[in-house]
Amino acid sequence: MSLLTVGSVAFDALETPFGKTDKIIGGAATYITLSASYFVEKNNLVAVVGDDFPQSMIDDLHQHGINTDGLEIRQGEKTFFWSGKYHNDMNSRDTVEVQLNVMEHFNPIIPDSYQDCDYLMLGNTAPAIQQMVIERLHKRPKLIVLDTMNLWIEIANPDLMNLLKLVDVLVVNDEEARQLTREYSLVKAAAKIRSLGPQTVIIKKGEHGALLFSEGQIFFAPALPLEEVFDPTGAGDTFAGGFIGHLAKTDDISFENMKRAIIYGSAMASFCVEKFGAERIMNLTQEEIQARVSEFVTLSAFGLDL
Amino acid sequence: MSLLTVGSVAFDALETPFGKTDKIIGGAATYITLSASYFVEKNNLVAVVGDDFPQSMIDDLHQHGINTDGLEIRQGEKTFFWSGKYHNDMNSRDTVEVQLNVMEHFNPIIPDSYQDCDYLMLGNTAPAIQQMVIERLHKRPKLIVLDTMNLWIEIANPDLMNLLKLVDVLVVNDEEARQLTREYSLVKAAAKIRSLGPQTVIIKKGEHGALLFSEGQIFFAPALPLEEVFDPTGAGDTFAGGFIGHLAKTDDISFENMKRAIIYGSAMASFCVEKFGAERIMNLTQEEIQARVSEFVTLSAFGLDL
Repeated sequence: MSLLTVGSVAFDALETPFGKTDKIIGGAATYITLSASYFVEKNNLVAVVGDDFPQSMIDDLHQHGINTDGLEIRQGEKTFFWSGKYHNDMNSRDTVEVQLNVMEHFNPIIPDSYQDCDYLMLGNTAPAIQQMVIERLHKRPKLIVLDTMNLWIEIANPDLMNLLKLVDVLVVNDEEARQLTREYSLVKAAAKIRSLGPQTVIIKKGEHGALLFSEGQIFFAPALPLEEVFDPTGAGDTFAGGFIGHLAKTDDISFENMKRAIIYGSAMASFCVEKFGAERIMNLTQEEIQARVSEFVTLSAFGLDL
Repeated sequence: MSLLTVGSVAFDALETPFGKTDKIIGGAATYITLSASYFVEKNNLVAVVGDDFPQSMIDDLHQHGINTDGLEIRQGEKTFFWSGKYHNDMNSRDTVEVQLNVMEHFNPIIPDSYQDCDYLMLGNTAPAIQQMVIERLHKRPKLIVLDTMNLWIEIANPDLMNLLKLVDVLVVNDEEARQLTREYSLVKAAAKIRSLGPQTVIIKKGEHGALLFSEGQIFFAPALPLEEVFDPTGAGDTFAGGFIGHLAKTDDISFENMKRAIIYGSAMASFCVEKFGAERIMNLTQEEIQARVSEFVTLSAFGLDL
């Protein structure tokens, strides 16, 4: 099935306890489409960059089968730039600098060839822009997955509330779920989010795994215990890409298959953190992915005779 | 198989966002033996209380099949008392008051009838006292499980280091594992702890589940996502009691069976937090326990065709 991903394609400059980078390729939609490329063939990207964005990076996306017909290159403008510095525990980071540049007036253009998309991934960007994408599609996709962040919960809450009514799955981290609902218990937070629209809620807990909530059902997915997290940037987007990529590949949105999709997403995210930026997820084999998924099976399987 | 548990039997006064208690029965060994009572018949307790400890509470222990021949009642002295207040998020608490009383000179006496014990649970108390217990047993138990806490890591580090060489399993929470090893990564922390003695390490992560580490193997056990945690006091001890209780019942210390034991421990802990103190784990049925364990199976099972 075809996947459409909307979100940022950006430059990032990162600093972790292990080192720092110059401007490297980043952005939610970059990580999502790269991650999904290991699952789907029709992998369509809608994003905007400036004329400073190198053709070699677009070539990299093409090499991963990503369709960039919807990647607008705005002449005379600059690409979105974010730089951040991670604390020693890698669980928190400070934003050092943000240059919105082209993202300030992002007007997502959906090429006609994308109109038949079955799965829609709304990567993190302003809720009003995410909603525009839904409205510009002639038919509703089979599944709409939404990612958002604390910034939009704070400054664009009414927009986000409207948008939540239109989507099937919300993917947030534990902090965002609590901020959105003012509930500390994640069980209560998920119930509240479900009452706002999305019938399925995924709450990511970083190194503690992820929870999947749907009607009367909960699934707890482990995270792979890692010796070292080199750079967590993009791990959440990579997770989302693996999740929706597996769903689109199998075209099965049952709860049982969503569990498997979360395991695939978690496996992809566990690769992402091994190197700076998107380097690791640009260089994976199907064999490596299957081996990693097997590790998750070993990690969480237990046999009980009840 | 027979289980011997050593640790505190105490009075607690608790305050949580849901209410507060007067002095109720508490202490590590209380929670451990009550939890283990659903698994083992030979459930032997070594502890010390003052003459203010009510016979009715000792009767309660007897009703759960707990052997109190090793419970010393010291005349003219008072029982260990702890009072604590939980913060709103229930993940942290402040100690309001500690009265060591009889625990100040705890000299664990092992009745002859306990000497044949197969499984030894060293509940949280000073490492020197825990070591005394090992030395006072005529034969080494098949499995020695140790619990400890941040206090002993700080003030009795050399004692703890000596003790670690003598035990098979260490049960700690994530903070304690990091404090003990000065490693942030739990994978590295577990490896370091294993190099200090215990061949198996369990790192409890509260609402995030638990990790089991042994030679080249890791298991990630989920925690049951709960709507409400009423009172977390004793949850860790209840976990330990279910863990060693299941091992002693089945007399199987393989990694596969330790996984199951962690699930039983997690199930017992999930009951413990539902009411104040030990109230809930004093009133459980085997049917309730099996139903709760089934929830863990549903929670974490996923099918993958690889």
